[in-house]
Amino acid sequence: MGLGVGLIGSGYMGKCHALAWTSVATVFPDVERPRLVALADATPELAQQQALAFGFGRGTGDWRDLVADPAIHVISIAAPNQFHAEMAVAALEAGKHVWCEKPMATSLEDATRMRDAARRLGRTAILGYNYIQNPMIRLARAIIDEDRIGTVNHIRLEMDEDYMADPTERFYWKSEEASGYGALDDFAVHPLSLLSVLHGRITSVVADMAKPYAERPANDGGTRSVENHDIAQALFRTEAGASGVLMVNRSAWGRKGRIALQIFGSKGSILFDQERMNELQVYSTDDPIGLQGYRTLLAGPPHTPYRQFIPAPGHGLGFNELKVIECNELLQAISGSRNAHVIDFERGLEIERIVHATARSAQSRGWVDL
Amino acid sequence: MGLGVGLIGSGYMGKCHALAWTSVATVFPDVERPRLVALADATPELAQQQALAFGFGRGTGDWRDLVADPAIHVISIAAPNQFHAEMAVAALEAGKHVWCEKPMATSLEDATRMRDAARRLGRTAILGYNYIQNPMIRLARAIIDEDRIGTVNHIRLEMDEDYMADPTERFYWKSEEASGYGALDDFAVHPLSLLSVLHGRITSVVADMAKPYAERPANDGGTRSVENHDIAQALFRTEAGASGVLMVNRSAWGRKGRIALQIFGSKGSILFDQERMNELQVYSTDDPIGLQGYRTLLAGPPHTPYRQFIPAPGHGLGFNELKVIECNELLQAISGSRNAHVIDFERGLEIERIVHATARSAQSRGWVDL
Amino acid sequence: MGLGVGLIGSGYMGKCHALAWTSVATVFPDVERPRLVALADATPELAQQQALAFGFGRGTGDWRDLVADPAIHVISIAAPNQFHAEMAVAALEAGKHVWCEKPMATSLEDATRMRDAARRLGRTAILGYNYIQNPMIRLARAIIDEDRIGTVNHIRLEMDEDYMADPTERFYWKSEEASGYGALDDFAVHPLSLLSVLHGRITSVVADMAKPYAERPANDGGTRSVENHDIAQALFRTEAGASGVLMVNRSAWGRKGRIALQIFGSKGSILFDQERMNELQVYSTDDPIGLQGYRTLLAGPPHTPYRQFIPAPGHGLGFNELKVIECNELLQAISGSRNAHVIDFERGLEIERIVHATARSAQSRGWVDL
Amino acid sequence: MGLGVGLIGSGYMGKCHALAWTSVATVFPDVERPRLVALADATPELAQQQALAFGFGRGTGDWRDLVADPAIHVISIAAPNQFHAEMAVAALEAGKHVWCEKPMATSLEDATRMRDAARRLGRTAILGYNYIQNPMIRLARAIIDEDRIGTVNHIRLEMDEDYMADPTERFYWKSEEASGYGALDDFAVHPLSLLSVLHGRITSVVADMAKPYAERPANDGGTRSVENHDIAQALFRTEAGASGVLMVNRSAWGRKGRIALQIFGSKGSILFDQERMNELQVYSTDDPIGLQGYRTLLAGPPHTPYRQFIPAPGHGLGFNELKVIECNELLQAISGSRNAHVIDFERGLEIERIVHATARSAQSRGWVDL
Repeated sequence: MGLGVGLIGSGYMGKCHALAWTSVATVFPDVERPRLVALADATPELAQQQALAFGFGRGTGDWRDLVADPAIHVISIAAPNQFHAEMAVAALEAGKHVWCEKPMATSLEDATRMRDAARRLGRTAILGYNYIQNPMIRLARAIIDEDRIGTVNHIRLEMDEDYMADPTERFYWKSEEASGYGALDDFAVHPLSLLSVLHGRITSVVADMAKPYAERPANDGGTRSVENHDIAQALFRTEAGASGVLMVNRSAWGRKGRIALQIFGSKGSILFDQERMNELQVYSTDDPIGLQGYRTLLAGPPHTPYRQFIPAPGHGLGFNELKVIECNELLQAISGSRNAHVIDFERGLEIERIVHATARSAQSRGWVDL
Repeated sequence: MGLGVGLIGSGYMGKCHALAWTSVATVFPDVERPRLVALADATPELAQQQALAFGFGRGTGDWRDLVADPAIHVISIAAPNQFHAEMAVAALEAGKHVWCEKPMATSLEDATRMRDAARRLGRTAILGYNYIQNPMIRLARAIIDEDRIGTVNHIRLEMDEDYMADPTERFYWKSEEASGYGALDDFAVHPLSLLSVLHGRITSVVADMAKPYAERPANDGGTRSVENHDIAQALFRTEAGASGVLMVNRSAWGRKGRIALQIFGSKGSILFDQERMNELQVYSTDDPIGLQGYRTLLAGPPHTPYRQFIPAPGHGLGFNELKVIECNELLQAISGSRNAHVIDFERGLEIERIVHATARSAQSRGWVDL
Repeated sequence: MGLGVGLIGSGYMGKCHALAWTSVATVFPDVERPRLVALADATPELAQQQALAFGFGRGTGDWRDLVADPAIHVISIAAPNQFHAEMAVAALEAGKHVWCEKPMATSLEDATRMRDAARRLGRTAILGYNYIQNPMIRLARAIIDEDRIGTVNHIRLEMDEDYMADPTERFYWKSEEASGYGALDDFAVHPLSLLSVLHGRITSVVADMAKPYAERPANDGGTRSVENHDIAQALFRTEAGASGVLMVNRSAWGRKGRIALQIFGSKGSILFDQERMNELQVYSTDDPIGLQGYRTLLAGPPHTPYRQFIPAPGHGLGFNELKVIECNELLQAISGSRNAHVIDFERGLEIERIVHATARSAQSRGWVDL
Repeated sequence: MGLGVGLIGSGYMGKCHALAWTSVATVFPDVERPRLVALADATPELAQQQALAFGFGRGTGDWRDLVADPAIHVISIAAPNQFHAEMAVAALEAGKHVWCEKPMATSLEDATRMRDAARRLGRTAILGYNYIQNPMIRLARAIIDEDRIGTVNHIRLEMDEDYMADPTERFYWKSEEASGYGALDDFAVHPLSLLSVLHGRITSVVADMAKPYAERPANDGGTRSVENHDIAQALFRTEAGASGVLMVNRSAWGRKGRIALQIFGSKGSILFDQERMNELQVYSTDDPIGLQGYRTLLAGPPHTPYRQFIPAPGHGLGFNELKVIECNELLQAISGSRNAHVIDFERGLEIERIVHATARSAQSRGWVDL
């Protein structure tokens, strides 16, 4: 009998969690099928409807019901960011394992509280950094680990979308200061999670944040000042001695789900773009002179765990399937594996610290050490 | 209470069906969750193990158990091709709906028998042509239907993989004459299904089939003659007046899951490659002079039914998710929708006829009319 | 003192020849600067104006003046195709070397006459197949010669542009039967020249030719029937045992200067597209499993003779510079080099034979042997 | 009779100038053919040899000979950077027009002196910023000017090559402090010239410079400390209100001639990469919903002055041909045109100021205003 699952939130990422919980045992032969016990959402009606749609046993308007249910062993948190800390700490304290969507929390204090609870209570507590689960990202790590591109000395990270790019769209909560720094906490955590997995820690940063549009149309027919920043960018240095640049922009017309990496080493380099998530480009000076060039690798059975999804190469995984891989890693972690490929609350807090240091640098107009 | 499902076969495509049946109700809010009643495979042991893994109620070594089970309303056939006809006809005669993997059958007689049974018994009977379910292919159809590229006058279709490309690999059943023509029936049905959906019927064809390797290493240490063709190619004309070329190659080093379309019309053109399945390229002469060029469209919420999977654009669907879409279309067809986007046995038989006419042309060295 | 040069024709390709003659000695350090003696065009006025513009000593309305001028050692023929034979034979008979634009002639008889004259008179006589001069095509040949992709077993050749793609454009001489077969002789010679250099001879062919538009607007306000074919396609076999497809289309909206090659071998493959003429894609099974993919090579100093133009890699050569390379090869051939990389009248006639055999096949609706 | 030309320096860029002077009148019909009067290089022997190779009337070991020659009206300076100022000022004072390679000079003082001389003496004095001459860059400017992407609010500039990427290569003068800042002055001027043309002035900058390799093998068998920086990166703000990032790296394995632009506006965006210099990518929100995507434009006759080189689209210009365009613009400027598309010493000095401000910021670890 598999673990009992509770899911809080059934919107964008909640559905993604539900799909992962539903599919994980079909995809991974060693996984015992989880039981989808209960789903919580804002109202009982919505929760019941979504429980039915997603195949959960029951729905509830109160997430604390899940925390209190002994049939539930692990809780997926896909609720609005400001509730993450309270939910995660309560779940951990009730002895549940926690799978929490990123960003971890809306303040460093909350994130620290979550990390402390995870440490104290010894349960598995991970964050939903699904992009690290891409077989091509794992391949990138293997390429670096096997020293195929030598010592990494320069890194560029970009994440861009265009959902805030239209200046004629009405002001909504995403532009309120209360919702956070803007692109910095919306996006930066993603490339930073990749950096964490592929390279290591940032030690210092200098940053700038910008508003492409100072104001937006308001509901009352007038305009309203935009309170946070749709663009952020930072120069950084890493513990391992590399220099780098981080760029995020949620008002970048034409970009839909771009997360672009450029990683340069002493013997080669690696390129990746999430918009072509099934490809990785590698340049190696081991190739003969005159025959060196970026090699476009297509995801296939040699790239773990692609084979579990499709036995033929080049057929393509999707964004949602990264969550299925993540779910399997979570289950490995819960079952005690030391090699589970996850970002736990410990490492998640490090990522949050970089985000906040970046914001401080943008405010102070100077370098900030971490 | 959703429909009862039986699955025959739990290999490559069987797993793909299982994932689709598991996920379809989570993805599509209007779908009642199907009940995974039973799974059949070659032996009871394998079937029981796979039933457990895939979440089916029971496993059986005899597919006729599924046909006889009144709790099963629809049967997925993902068994070896030579059994399709017998299984499909038996299922239809037992009043089940049928979802059968392609190719339809290994002979035109069998395919005709299947079509006749579907006609006679009035059940929903469709084929697993999942590539037509790609939102970008549907977008291509919409672009053509809306006359954005004008009258289509020329089409090029390619499907290439490299799983037979290594001449040092041992002879196995795929190279036996008994397994079929080779690349022609392995591959050609896929681009032909896209042609059927996007353009219409082929009326005449002249073809050639080739063996890149005349023999292969045999198990006994000697060599064995290859009996069918890893490469096939044909020139064709269509009912709508277009000329075209069909090319398939299962020994094409470097190609992993390429299904490439080039569709030229009197006002523009469309390009597609399954290896980048989330992209479609469109050239339109409606764009201003000097600003005309191929536009790379990334799959997103405007492209039905992408939105059901992910609310954000450019995040990427995977190969397996096409099967989920297909499953939903099947359910729409079963519930009586006239607009279900499927290839039924009627149209499937047309595709088989083209395959066999192509083979005849390669043998007769002349044009063959359809 | 360098060779004396005469140029017949100062349009599109005439200008391209003039640029090559002007630049060749600056680019290639071993080349003695040619003397631009005289230019001939349709009228004396035009010829004098163009001679001044292109830096030739004098202009003449009679191309026979060039043939008669003892100061001229080599004659560039960039006049309309129907005059090639007469001009080339006269020039050869006058003891000149000849550099003639392709296609060689408008009939097989004329082409044979040209070949015979070149044989008989022992002068250097080459055709302007500039695409073979691309360093990336030479690289492709080296890759094949060094057995990096093994034995070539399948080839696809495409050449497409869109200058005849607009059905609303008026009928003009390009659509007259007298101008030739259409796309077949406009385009096919280019990919066939590449095939000749990279692989070898075609031995049999089956073809189809198509008209995307049966008629076009005429000057008188009515319409006029199109007399030749904007689309041609053929299946072929080669002496070396490969199968292949040739596709040409001059009404392919969106294609501007596409000449695409796909060459598959027993150990790898090569892709090329003239629209990205500074790139070559190579797939090699010598790369480790899991790290195999198409490598995009950018033209640079290792790729002869790129270094003569630019010492830094990846900066890009242009179409016109291929003619400069060709000019240098012509000069090498004239000076007696056996290794000059050119298509002489002998090999040019072979290409013409393929074109005419293809046309015959399209008419007879059957395979034609060469 | 055209202008008399003197050329100082016959290496990489000297040859490029020679080709431009040789070809410009053939390409551009309105240009009077320049007379290649004399070439100067380090020794008389080298100069005479190169004069012969490049078609100049004579060679000299003393560049002042050119300055003194009344038959020379314009002087190309392609000598080492530290001599630019002395040569340019002397030439201007002798009444010559000056075409000087970039970077302008090795110190801000020298660059200022050059600018002052150009102002004072009223001759045409331009810098060899050839990348701005690319028809696709001009197209980008037209797209911005025509408000097709709206108000530009974010810009990313990258220039990367790999000629310093190999850590096993011996220390040579490029790594000496005396040679300059490193990548910053080697590369940054190029993307900054594009920024100047496409957008406008930078007003503030914060920067970092990095050494991928602290030391390199020395000729004596030991190692030697690297004295400047192969990597530089900066955040910036512009007068027009945009934010941006500048990144340059001359040790970026795999990059050969990358100059990548990303320009985001309120209605669309533009992408460019010099490694595919005949392409421009444009995203426009004027396209219909569901049909928006980056359009890849291929250089062709609508993109001035492509048509002067080749009448057919998509055939491709090369790096050297940008210099021919620049030469024509220089001649237009000399003949008094106000619309010549050049970077004169005035604007060149602005670019130098940004370079030096960037270096100061990297040293002071803070923002620097311009």
